[in-house]
Amino acid sequence: MRVEVMKRVLGSNEAAAQANRKFWDDNGILVLDFMGSPGSGKTSVFERMIRELTQRGRSLKVIEGDVASTNDARRIEQAGAEAFQINTGGACHLHAAMVSRAMQQLDLDGVQIMLIENVGNLVCPTAFLLGAHFRFVVASVPEGDDKPEKYPVAFREADGIILNKIDLLPHLPFDADKFWELCDQLNSEAPKFAVSCTTGEGLDTLCDFIEEQLAQLGG
Amino acid sequence: MRVEVMKRVLGSNEAAAQANRKFWDDNGILVLDFMGSPGSGKTSVFERMIRELTQRGRSLKVIEGDVASTNDARRIEQAGAEAFQINTGGACHLHAAMVSRAMQQLDLDGVQIMLIENVGNLVCPTAFLLGAHFRFVVASVPEGDDKPEKYPVAFREADGIILNKIDLLPHLPFDADKFWELCDQLNSEAPKFAVSCTTGEGLDTLCDFIEEQLAQLGG
Repeated sequence: MRVEVMKRVLGSNEAAAQANRKFWDDNGILVLDFMGSPGSGKTSVFERMIRELTQRGRSLKVIEGDVASTNDARRIEQAGAEAFQINTGGACHLHAAMVSRAMQQLDLDGVQIMLIENVGNLVCPTAFLLGAHFRFVVASVPEGDDKPEKYPVAFREADGIILNKIDLLPHLPFDADKFWELCDQLNSEAPKFAVSCTTGEGLDTLCDFIEEQLAQLGG
Repeated sequence: MRVEVMKRVLGSNEAAAQANRKFWDDNGILVLDFMGSPGSGKTSVFERMIRELTQRGRSLKVIEGDVASTNDARRIEQAGAEAFQINTGGACHLHAAMVSRAMQQLDLDGVQIMLIENVGNLVCPTAFLLGAHFRFVVASVPEGDDKPEKYPVAFREADGIILNKIDLLPHLPFDADKFWELCDQLNSEAPKFAVSCTTGEGLDTLCDFIEEQLAQLGG
């Protein structure tokens, strides 16, 4: 019976995700969903991307998913983009209907790119697509080079893989070759980005990639 | 209906957790359950504790919970303790019955301390007690000083809080006073430990505390 309930929950999520996608396509908004461990630096990556892409003349908004607190939405607004904070209350991931409701609270006029930060969790968000065009998984150097092996679904199902905090490589026993090999074994097709939000390294390349995705959408 | 199913799942977990606790009490085994984000360093803390407590003449075994891979069990065995690896398949936390089954696979003769590493996740394990005498949450410096605010249930319901990777404090903008204040607001009673598995700092104090718990159990 638990399985039946899960099937029904996932089915209704899928319908809501499809409706989200249709809405975003109709409005020419590129939507990117980011998942990763707590503290992997998703919000820091958003801050950097907002500053860079805004400078390039792009208009972004953000949906922040957290179990509790509005810390991340505040950080995003300081970086220069409007953010809508979803507090899940205890739920370990966003689901598509939460995102639909959040969108209704945001003025989307002129918005080209919507960033969604999922709840910090490498397991649960994988089962709940939100309808985004592209889903990134964000890993970070201090988490260790074996994370793809230990949380394979997140890395296998991501459309793109970001390794964050590469400025810490000199201080930690992290084998970057091993990390990328494990990623390639699970997901050879996903584009891969190594970035540091402290030094800014790699963020340009990531923003170039996002602009290419926007161009493909006709934006 | 989903709520009803969850109630039933949690109720059956609680019964299994109580049975685990009774078994451990009857056998004089102190059981410690560790939760934390992926990459917070739970396994590194285990390696250090095993080496230190074994030197002090204690007998430990370990149950390792992971979505996938047997990496952690291998690391534990290299540190000198037998480990039983639970792979949850896709589940985001251990539950009590998984632990009961794992115990049946371990020779518990003479064992004084059992360490359980939950799946790397700051959200889901909180709802599923395993019957352990003591539950630690492990946070780490690179995750950022706001984690208690963003994942309050894990910090509120923990019996003890460990801040790991304090050797990285010079390299990161982590406000330790703020972190401990947030912990105190949520959970003033939990004993708190600052450790580094790289330098070994703080591990002695943590092991002293564990031995005190063992003494209270009559071990």
